Amino acid sequence: MRGDISPLKYLEMKSSNYFHGGNHREVARRYGLLPNEILDFSANINPWANSLGIEKIVRTNLKEIYHYPDPQCTELIKQISQYLGVGRENILVGNGSTELMYLAARALLPRRALIFAPTFFEYERAIKACGGEPKFLFLKESQGFSINIQKIIRAIKDVEAVFICNPNNPTGTFFPEEELLELVKITEERKITFIVDESYLDFKYPGESLVREAQKANYLLVLRSFTKFFALAGLRLGYGVGGGHLIEKLVGLKEPWTVNCLAQAVGAYLLRHEENIKKIREAVRKETEFLFGELSQIGGLKPYPPEANFILVRIETELSSLKLQEDLAKKGILIRDCSNFTGLNDKFFRVAVRKREENLKLIDNLRKTI
Amino acid sequence: MRGDISPLKYLEMKSSNYFHGGNHREVARRYGLLPNEILDFSANINPWANSLGIEKIVRTNLKEIYHYPDPQCTELIKQISQYLGVGRENILVGNGSTELMYLAARALLPRRALIFAPTFFEYERAIKACGGEPKFLFLKESQGFSINIQKIIRAIKDVEAVFICNPNNPTGTFFPEEELLELVKITEERKITFIVDESYLDFKYPGESLVREAQKANYLLVLRSFTKFFALAGLRLGYGVGGGHLIEKLVGLKEPWTVNCLAQAVGAYLLRHEENIKKIREAVRKETEFLFGELSQIGGLKPYPPEANFILVRIETELSSLKLQEDLAKKGILIRDCSNFTGLNDKFFRVAVRKREENLKLIDNLRKTI
Repeated sequence: MRGDISPLKYLEMKSSNYFHGGNHREVARRYGLLPNEILDFSANINPWANSLGIEKIVRTNLKEIYHYPDPQCTELIKQISQYLGVGRENILVGNGSTELMYLAARALLPRRALIFAPTFFEYERAIKACGGEPKFLFLKESQGFSINIQKIIRAIKDVEAVFICNPNNPTGTFFPEEELLELVKITEERKITFIVDESYLDFKYPGESLVREAQKANYLLVLRSFTKFFALAGLRLGYGVGGGHLIEKLVGLKEPWTVNCLAQAVGAYLLRHEENIKKIREAVRKETEFLFGELSQIGGLKPYPPEANFILVRIETELSSLKLQEDLAKKGILIRDCSNFTGLNDKFFRVAVRKREENLKLIDNLRKTI
Repeated sequence: MRGDISPLKYLEMKSSNYFHGGNHREVARRYGLLPNEILDFSANINPWANSLGIEKIVRTNLKEIYHYPDPQCTELIKQISQYLGVGRENILVGNGSTELMYLAARALLPRRALIFAPTFFEYERAIKACGGEPKFLFLKESQGFSINIQKIIRAIKDVEAVFICNPNNPTGTFFPEEELLELVKITEERKITFIVDESYLDFKYPGESLVREAQKANYLLVLRSFTKFFALAGLRLGYGVGGGHLIEKLVGLKEPWTVNCLAQAVGAYLLRHEENIKKIREAVRKETEFLFGELSQIGGLKPYPPEANFILVRIETELSSLKLQEDLAKKGILIRDCSNFTGLNDKFFRVAVRKREENLKLIDNLRKTI
């Protein structure tokens, strides 16, 4: 076999399983609970989304499972196009935005790619899987995990791609559109692929998307997800928006039928009902403020101001995040121990915002455990 | 970007959309019909599978769509392991077997791979997407599309991988287990990756699988699909069986969460009910014989003996397969024009076996059109 690109060096990492939250089934097994007895704060999934009529759409489309899904996602792309006001030829749908991260890495093969630390793990893995190497730009706790856009511009001089999650998971680091446009200008000039992951943007900053810019650009790919805001984590749906030439390049390498028929039907339905989107956005916003306020009042914890539907928290006592995760898991509460994020350590954990009663249960148990 | 592997040369092919059947939605649009008014003989999907209780399992598991799917597919792998009698560490689940073809090509990077012509298009595309080149072994019409295993053994001397679909789509070319074992012996000795796609094996030859051999081997990967026999085309589910080291290599590169929660639940359910599998196998077998008999009696058509749930047919009149497809589509009947298969021409079409009333409608319309 060819040795010139070497995904095999990557094998020491085995798989992504270790690097994510949302493993409530495994935790349930470990502590002798049923999966639905676990209150899962570890995955950033919007608990209001189950009021949007998603299950009814699945039921209505059940017979579709006996046919191949439309590999071109024609109806869904039509809806995305109308919802965002971008051309259909500028849109590509995937099995979650994760498929599109890997696809972009494969199509563009960057030798080096700039990635924040800490951030979502799969950017790093996608780059390494194609034989590239990550260049980490550390977000410093001493600066509240914020970073100046000029610092990013200086850091991209020796890379061929840059991944930014906006707002960033798990730190909430956020850039308004006008700041990122400065970066877009430079990446376009230097032909550096700029991948902006807007998976969490809709929670608080729906007006700050780069999608309209992306359709005019050559090197900008905006990724968006149904996993968090619409809670479609189990059904798998995401999409990318970019210039026609870039999308065509990705389509040329994309595997067929990755987006199942139910995800396509539900996605099209959700975007047809913008009034629902506004309603649940407001619900999440209010509850996020509430949870942040409550966490701020627990001695020994320092929550960072949320920019989406999750809160990063620093433990200021002797307790480690792993021990805290274990203690809470025994009580059926699952938080995200952040010690395996590059750039964080065993003093950090992340919680998703859930509904009031559940958040109160979290707060109560945190008070007793810290 | 790096030039050493060149997926970009592949871009001239754009996407897989042109190369498959099952596009009943597009055909419906073209002829002003509703998708459910089309009788789809173009995709090889088992129409008896909808009696297996699949929809009930989807309904029971609906709430799972709000959680990440288990990236390790623990429960499903347990069921597959029991069903096949192979170790759990020898199994990898994918978004259809198609995901695993592409994954294997990426992990193993064969410079050249032997592929039958005609056969399923995605083997060729998976190889090219990783910068490899296909070496075609033509199945000859003059020999009824059969081929001697010794001829394959001679043809693999300058390849690093070989893909065999058994039985082969669309020709039905079939090798019993003992013949393939001779090939396995040689590919193991020469360290040639041997990928056997058993997507259609369960229809007629359930006892001829190489899965038990695969778990002991180093270079053998057996692919199996829920798309055809269980008609889960729209939900996306397939799996691979291989030696522990090979599976570990694939897991190391696999993207997380590609298998949605409903597919996992349905797959585990289906394999727990072997009695259902036997029942629908017998139904398909009987109807396949009936349809083959009827097609044989239409002047101007030569059907090839079926080995699965589809029949390849040669047109012996002036009519082209594209014209025949168009004529039938206007009547709401969709067949698979085979003119875009490498190794076939515009005199071939393929039909899937459907239920009696539908098959009679096909036969009736073929008689009127030929």
